[in-house]
Amino acid sequence: MTHRHRALTPSLAAATLAVGLLLPSPARAELVTKVVEYKQGDAVLEGYLAYEAGGPAKRPGVLVIHDWLGVGPNTRARVDQLARLGYVAFAADIYGKGVRPKGPAEAGKLAGQYKGDRALLRERVRAGLAELRKVPLVEAPKVAAIGYCFGGTTALELARSGADVAAVVSFHGGLDTPTPADAKNIKAHVLVLHGADDPYVPAEQVAAFEAEMRAAGVDWQLVKYSGAVHSFTIPDAGNDNSKGAAYNAVADRRSWQAMKALFAETLQ
Amino acid sequence: MTHRHRALTPSLAAATLAVGLLLPSPARAELVTKVVEYKQGDAVLEGYLAYEAGGPAKRPGVLVIHDWLGVGPNTRARVDQLARLGYVAFAADIYGKGVRPKGPAEAGKLAGQYKGDRALLRERVRAGLAELRKVPLVEAPKVAAIGYCFGGTTALELARSGADVAAVVSFHGGLDTPTPADAKNIKAHVLVLHGADDPYVPAEQVAAFEAEMRAAGVDWQLVKYSGAVHSFTIPDAGNDNSKGAAYNAVADRRSWQAMKALFAETLQ
Repeated sequence: MTHRHRALTPSLAAATLAVGLLLPSPARAELVTKVVEYKQGDAVLEGYLAYEAGGPAKRPGVLVIHDWLGVGPNTRARVDQLARLGYVAFAADIYGKGVRPKGPAEAGKLAGQYKGDRALLRERVRAGLAELRKVPLVEAPKVAAIGYCFGGTTALELARSGADVAAVVSFHGGLDTPTPADAKNIKAHVLVLHGADDPYVPAEQVAAFEAEMRAAGVDWQLVKYSGAVHSFTIPDAGNDNSKGAAYNAVADRRSWQAMKALFAETLQ
Repeated sequence: MTHRHRALTPSLAAATLAVGLLLPSPARAELVTKVVEYKQGDAVLEGYLAYEAGGPAKRPGVLVIHDWLGVGPNTRARVDQLARLGYVAFAADIYGKGVRPKGPAEAGKLAGQYKGDRALLRERVRAGLAELRKVPLVEAPKVAAIGYCFGGTTALELARSGADVAAVVSFHGGLDTPTPADAKNIKAHVLVLHGADDPYVPAEQVAAFEAEMRAAGVDWQLVKYSGAVHSFTIPDAGNDNSKGAAYNAVADRRSWQAMKALFAETLQ
């Protein structure tokens, strides 16, 4: 699947519908996936949609917000996983069509640019949410947003913008914001999944976030996973904690489970 | 569950429904319960055992450690709930047969006495664990311990004693210990379920606990529930957070779910 999508030319992408039988098992429905071109203002964005063929006519939706590398294989894999759980899942594109950083330096610069312009960041993610809501399969009020690293920060910023989302989940996202008072706008149930040894999201930032949520009366939960640093759900991140970012299979599995539990509570 | 069914092809869904109709839906296995007298040294203790009649010949065991009121209705209700999940559940008695404090003053004194003598506390809880292991139904290596308030502290102390338990769960327990270096003895996967506004387990104590676990390389998780104070799983605790202890139905449900997820991982 992934390879096929990576091989798509940009011109084909917008209108291409990919349907694949993943397994011969009769229990598995076909996965419908689609690269979706949409806009925010004048910016052209390119997201990725997936859902299971057949099944109910209306389903809860989940918006997935990419890490600093943009919509890539890891993001699409999460969208597919969510589709397999019965959701209509859509990866929002924050950076713009064709804007895909080549490595950490470029990614850091780009993510930093959007983190430094929260108004634009909110517009971009809200455009993604609007795009997801347009999918006829989506049961309108039952929409959640999740995000990874930069995307976790963005998911929280989406909630602070007052977006009508039932739940927001951050996987190893930065928790800081220039406008903590905006927490009063949050309608979502908030779940923060945090590596206990994440050097990029230090204890002081976690404490400030808790204080922000508490002051605004938000329904929030925060889970700390031992032995986990930044990027703990990203398979490409390697296994060297001393680098500050590394994959952790246990924390990956547990955090996915925690997300599912919140969705079972808020999206049914 | 709903989603798994939604993902099924219509024919398989129909088959599942048919199987469901064959089951005597309201019929539940009989719950076997037993008050168990046992000893630690010369002290006579009185625990409470429950398991489902029928079912597999070997099952994982869960030790339940009472709050400061001793083995009472709340503790027995948790034992019954665990039995309904398929575990052999046993409430350990820390205080001794017939020693059941009448109210907070007496309870605080008694709990404080055991908290002040961790050696004795460990002996008492280890005697309960040994009693659980004697039940022929119990699949020996698959035993966990959970505890509430004082019992959460005790469950963690059990782990620090080096007891051979697969998992330990503290519900709104105190996290302090006079011997943090003993964390090196911990074999269990540790899960701490904590009210984010618990005045009896303040942020400094949580931070010290995290440092203790981190230094010892323990596999631990800590979940903070917003709007929850001490005793958040205890229905009798009322609903006035300003008292520092109150029931919180949402945190109660979420924390039970988190416990089940850890058990699914460590006791299956």
